[in-house]
Amino acid sequence: MEFDTVIHNGTLVTMDARMRIIPSGWIGIRNGCIGAIESVAPPAGVPQSVDAAGGIVMPGLVNTHTHLPMTLFRGLADDLPLAEWLNDHIFPAEARFIRPDTVRWGTLLACAEMLLSGTTCCCGGYFLENEVARAVSETGMRAVLAQGVIDFPAPGVPDPKKNIDHAEAYAKHWLSESPRIIPSIFCHAPYTCSDATLKAAKAAADEMGLLFQVHVAETRQERERSIKEKGLSPVAHLDSLGLLDRRTLMAHCVWVDDRDIAIAGDRGCAVVHCPESNMKLASGIAPVPAMRAARIPVGLGTDGCASNNDLDLFGEMATAAKLHKAASGDPTVLGALDVLKMGTIDGARAIGLYDSIGSLEIGKQADVVVLDTRTPHLTPMYHPESHIVYAAGGRDVRHVFVSGQPLVQDRRLLTMDIRKIMDRVNNIAQEIRKPWI
Amino acid sequence: MEFDTVIHNGTLVTMDARMRIIPSGWIGIRNGCIGAIESVAPPAGVPQSVDAAGGIVMPGLVNTHTHLPMTLFRGLADDLPLAEWLNDHIFPAEARFIRPDTVRWGTLLACAEMLLSGTTCCCGGYFLENEVARAVSETGMRAVLAQGVIDFPAPGVPDPKKNIDHAEAYAKHWLSESPRIIPSIFCHAPYTCSDATLKAAKAAADEMGLLFQVHVAETRQERERSIKEKGLSPVAHLDSLGLLDRRTLMAHCVWVDDRDIAIAGDRGCAVVHCPESNMKLASGIAPVPAMRAARIPVGLGTDGCASNNDLDLFGEMATAAKLHKAASGDPTVLGALDVLKMGTIDGARAIGLYDSIGSLEIGKQADVVVLDTRTPHLTPMYHPESHIVYAAGGRDVRHVFVSGQPLVQDRRLLTMDIRKIMDRVNNIAQEIRKPWI
Ligand SMILES: [Zn+2]
Ligand SMILES: [Zn+2]
Repeated sequence: MEFDTVIHNGTLVTMDARMRIIPSGWIGIRNGCIGAIESVAPPAGVPQSVDAAGGIVMPGLVNTHTHLPMTLFRGLADDLPLAEWLNDHIFPAEARFIRPDTVRWGTLLACAEMLLSGTTCCCGGYFLENEVARAVSETGMRAVLAQGVIDFPAPGVPDPKKNIDHAEAYAKHWLSESPRIIPSIFCHAPYTCSDATLKAAKAAADEMGLLFQVHVAETRQERERSIKEKGLSPVAHLDSLGLLDRRTLMAHCVWVDDRDIAIAGDRGCAVVHCPESNMKLASGIAPVPAMRAARIPVGLGTDGCASNNDLDLFGEMATAAKLHKAASGDPTVLGALDVLKMGTIDGARAIGLYDSIGSLEIGKQADVVVLDTRTPHLTPMYHPESHIVYAAGGRDVRHVFVSGQPLVQDRRLLTMDIRKIMDRVNNIAQEIRKPWI
Repeated sequence: MEFDTVIHNGTLVTMDARMRIIPSGWIGIRNGCIGAIESVAPPAGVPQSVDAAGGIVMPGLVNTHTHLPMTLFRGLADDLPLAEWLNDHIFPAEARFIRPDTVRWGTLLACAEMLLSGTTCCCGGYFLENEVARAVSETGMRAVLAQGVIDFPAPGVPDPKKNIDHAEAYAKHWLSESPRIIPSIFCHAPYTCSDATLKAAKAAADEMGLLFQVHVAETRQERERSIKEKGLSPVAHLDSLGLLDRRTLMAHCVWVDDRDIAIAGDRGCAVVHCPESNMKLASGIAPVPAMRAARIPVGLGTDGCASNNDLDLFGEMATAAKLHKAASGDPTVLGALDVLKMGTIDGARAIGLYDSIGSLEIGKQADVVVLDTRTPHLTPMYHPESHIVYAAGGRDVRHVFVSGQPLVQDRRLLTMDIRKIMDRVNNIAQEIRKPWI
């Protein structure tokens, strides 16, 4: 076979079904897909030959829950009670400053940050998602992007009665627009969307075969209110509406009990764990080991950057691996490979892309990251998967490919003018800063 | 006043008593000390003028608990029960591979990693500490370094009856050897040192006016065993021996109750919080907010690199800030500035260096770090202290000074041959790898 690109001289952490780690190997890329994974000498005469320089070659990370334009509010308000944070800072800032132009620059900044830190695919939703999708598609990154649905006036959707229409029109447009942008519909939460809205949104997503996303059981108050008002936990309530199936992704699920976990496991729906956001907002600690034991696909997400405050999935993996050990008192819980699965192949499964991304396997899209491990904090290296989870950070990423296309080379973005993007975002931040700071 | 060095064009996060943040300022350095902190235009004609390029200028971080040579075992064994991790991996590896040459190279690697990630001063202890101190002193870094004391044969101390003699001789030698190396004595723990050993070690430290360090109440089992065998909690036991005072530093204090906290507060001793190590080993979550409320100086530590798996104090700050919010359910607990205090001025206080380091103040040693903030993940910047704690990482450090001496310039180490150090450590790791992997 002839290849367009060969990446050689690295330790391949494949995340395939056998979790193979190949100490000194190479992968061949052809037409955007992985065509070979080998340990013998790489072929000569390939147009593009990338020397991994003894580093780690791994699948691109999958950030399964985020809100891209919220980079604009990074660190705007921290260390506050959730209601005050949302009502006095984030919601007013969104109402005032979320416009097509600000969404565009915030999204590009998010893509820059994610690509530079090894995330090749993200999943999430926001408002004015047309602008988000257009910006992401320009960068070459892969994404599942949803128009947000909420029963209040929202940026771009002044009349909430039209929220489903907006989401449908958005999704239809992006169904065939770009091979790397997959549309989706995102209901904000069961407490901000009526049962009718939730069902209509899910029906619209189903009709187009799309992922349906929703924030579920993020806080104790949400759970208690649901039980009080509806007699059901948030998960049981969504189940009673028939919304849980293999194309449903529930973000957070912090306050779920064994029955909720059993329901989610039975229905085959997926969950996103956002440990840093849940910790920072003091929401709690999701029972991830129990959810994984129930065979629920659990991905990792940063959530929006205003509650994190970055989009580095390496940090999210490190936090997840340690948090559940502390919470359970069991150091064997969520080992390095388990967490790395969550950040790659399980995340791909959670968002419906298991067949095309999440591992280095022949036939899959060549979404590949090369880490530089010749640095003090990654020396020595006994177990590459341990380094990826416990010692590496996004800043150790050297090269990034999506569908075989190089997007980051030697830590530099190839498809974006990062100075211009930062300048624009800084200008927007000057506007935001005035009334709030 | 004439300066040797001026650092200008940065946001000064001083960590002084008023927690001043000066948006566009400069500091002047003369004879290794800070001589000016100003917001007006910097003086011209200074021999060394450092442009912070709009970044953050802050005091160097203080890592108050680590075991430097353990970089050799980074990621050697993870995700194991504590007893298995220690007894089957770490202790045998130490017994077999800890020698003067390995300690030297492991220490140099640790210093490289710490300096590159903005830590200018560390505190801790190990065996063969003469080698450790010699290596650290070569790098220009500041450190409080203790000879370890334990009632078992240890590297360099085959006869445990001589453990105090060794520690005393070590400390005496280093009392006047280098202005930046401060000797100390470290008893491993109340369960590995007899009461007689603990008292003799503390007496030796007191005689020389040195810091006495000890691991205390790291695990639930340690606490339960102490109560069962001695009728006292680990803290109360140490107090009953008269060991707790202003020159005592207790590492961990995970399993302490209100009475223990009151004792520590009354005696004026200090505590080190090692959140990542405590989480990874599933030891638990130390009651840091309560200890701070009792006015105990609480510093931050990475602990040895084998249980972390890095020495990046930025990561430790991020974890501390989020962990206690999750543990308490209160998002206002341990705000960004509180945690940044722990990583700087409170850490300095905990190890007895409050008067000389931990903040940018006139007369203090010029231990200074410059962060590069013109990167996607630190854009925009509303609150510098938020970025330091929640979004920055060690890899954002651009320049590092200790006593005014530049040790890191544009991310490059000036006093160490990092390739040689990594080569040597990799060779040692080859040795270590053989029997254990
Ligand atoms: Zn969210
Ligand atoms: Zn320790």
